[in-house]
Amino acid sequence: MKPDDWEHCSGPVEEPGPGRFAGRTRVISLDPAMRGWLDDRPSYLPPVGIGEVMRAGSVIEVTASNHPDFQPGDHVVGTFGVQEHVVSDGKGAMKIDTSLAPPSTYLGALGMPGMTAYFGLLEVGALKDGETVVVSGAAGAVGSMVGQIAKAKGCRVVGIAGGPEKCALLTDELGFDAAIDYRTEDVRKALRGHAPDGIDVYFDNVGGDILDAALTRLAMHARVVVCGAISQYNNATPVKGPSNYLSLLVRRARMEGLVVFDYAKRYPQATQEISGWIGAGHIKVKEHVVRGTVDDFPETLQMLFRSENVGKLVLELA
Amino acid sequence: MKPDDWEHCSGPVEEPGPGRFAGRTRVISLDPAMRGWLDDRPSYLPPVGIGEVMRAGSVIEVTASNHPDFQPGDHVVGTFGVQEHVVSDGKGAMKIDTSLAPPSTYLGALGMPGMTAYFGLLEVGALKDGETVVVSGAAGAVGSMVGQIAKAKGCRVVGIAGGPEKCALLTDELGFDAAIDYRTEDVRKALRGHAPDGIDVYFDNVGGDILDAALTRLAMHARVVVCGAISQYNNATPVKGPSNYLSLLVRRARMEGLVVFDYAKRYPQATQEISGWIGAGHIKVKEHVVRGTVDDFPETLQMLFRSENVGKLVLELA
Repeated sequence: MKPDDWEHCSGPVEEPGPGRFAGRTRVISLDPAMRGWLDDRPSYLPPVGIGEVMRAGSVIEVTASNHPDFQPGDHVVGTFGVQEHVVSDGKGAMKIDTSLAPPSTYLGALGMPGMTAYFGLLEVGALKDGETVVVSGAAGAVGSMVGQIAKAKGCRVVGIAGGPEKCALLTDELGFDAAIDYRTEDVRKALRGHAPDGIDVYFDNVGGDILDAALTRLAMHARVVVCGAISQYNNATPVKGPSNYLSLLVRRARMEGLVVFDYAKRYPQATQEISGWIGAGHIKVKEHVVRGTVDDFPETLQMLFRSENVGKLVLELA
Repeated sequence: MKPDDWEHCSGPVEEPGPGRFAGRTRVISLDPAMRGWLDDRPSYLPPVGIGEVMRAGSVIEVTASNHPDFQPGDHVVGTFGVQEHVVSDGKGAMKIDTSLAPPSTYLGALGMPGMTAYFGLLEVGALKDGETVVVSGAAGAVGSMVGQIAKAKGCRVVGIAGGPEKCALLTDELGFDAAIDYRTEDVRKALRGHAPDGIDVYFDNVGGDILDAALTRLAMHARVVVCGAISQYNNATPVKGPSNYLSLLVRRARMEGLVVFDYAKRYPQATQEISGWIGAGHIKVKEHVVRGTVDDFPETLQMLFRSENVGKLVLELA
């Protein structure tokens, strides 16, 4: 995937028909999962076809409406795609309260990444109070929430991230107990030091060698949450399978996948609990805001795969 | 591992002290797991050290006893090792009834392989009636039990094995719905045909390419039971990790390891249920009996890794 794989197309601004509303995009979400949506193969969502508007979560401001639930001036979050002007029938769309949190937060801590962290950790990971949690991609949108939710639940948390700035953020600002810089440290050895009794829940966003290192340090009955594998998405070669997967046997552990949409009915519960933690200061919202136009989308998306973002990456339109 | 890695040592036959009994070995179990016990690294059991008697399950006949629970003439199953004469304090040993089943069956269908199949399928695999089960190493000690237990539970069962004889055994004699010969068939394509709605439980004994093929055909919320990886045990290179492990995410599936000893307290329950199935003709006991001496152990063990056994492989001492 490279910036010139994308094309910016223009067309007349559509008027909203009956039961529909129009809006102007305020802020667009950029997510590692987007890479997978471009592959032409069966997955948990159909691929984005060539010539289609790129799928993306975003917050729009309603400009005109023939829909009873959405009025001009409302801010609405939904999967509106990478475009400046949007027309929607409201399916999957939700009005947000920008007096409680800025629009971008509804794409991050209170959006898909927050929901993914919450249900991945608590449901798939079946986290119990006092356990040891390790998360990779720890300074990213999901990882930073995983670590903070685990801390809010009274767990010991070790984050794996790239570079001294991110590692300092994790321990100094986000309350992680320890951080491992995978660029300069031997991850396996560092895990031995920071999780001497083994890992109870390993939340994996990256795959590859880091997943393999974590597998060597599982506690008995550990849970490995497979959320993503950003190290592998741009491979021209096959995905590197976890060579140490047999530690699942030795440690009677499980590795389980997660697609956040399965928990849609329970988003309100999660949103409420996360909001509470934010309000109480237990969770700090980290956002990486790039200001620009939709033309900046391709280059901004690359930042995820170069590991340049800290916290939730969004593109805010001027 | 090669036959001349082993040494046959002789010594005086020990007399049983107080609280102990002596016996003569009748039949020795040969198991793929033995390969792992030879590696000098942490696992679910300590490695067998150089110079120690090789660990093995066996059935002995008691010849002399100072132990209240075991009398001369009793047949006893336990982890007595690869040796002709045994002295034991009775820890982990269990008297068997050879009028119900021959000694070898207490090492197979009613022994560790049977227990592994039972608890792997029903507990780790959380099998539900009517599901589709796929098992690799299907003509082996564990695999042949997995398939038959699943059939007894009303499931659709597909076995993967090497060679036309084994495949014919599975479908013609053991009641499997279909068999795939991994030596001549494209396993992935064959799975598409035999499990068109996907695999609910995949019980893996082999690892490698077959595990990867099965991962591409998982049904939603599938369970992959990691029991072993015989294709990888003799690798000089690192274990091949499952390149398609991200299908756990796409299919919201789980992969979980199993060590049968964890279920020791429930062996009697499993033994009773399996005995019932055998008695009712729902399960046929398949055993591959090699007759010889302990000197034949090294060469007989190789048969497992050359895929030459059909059913439970045992060495019966003359």
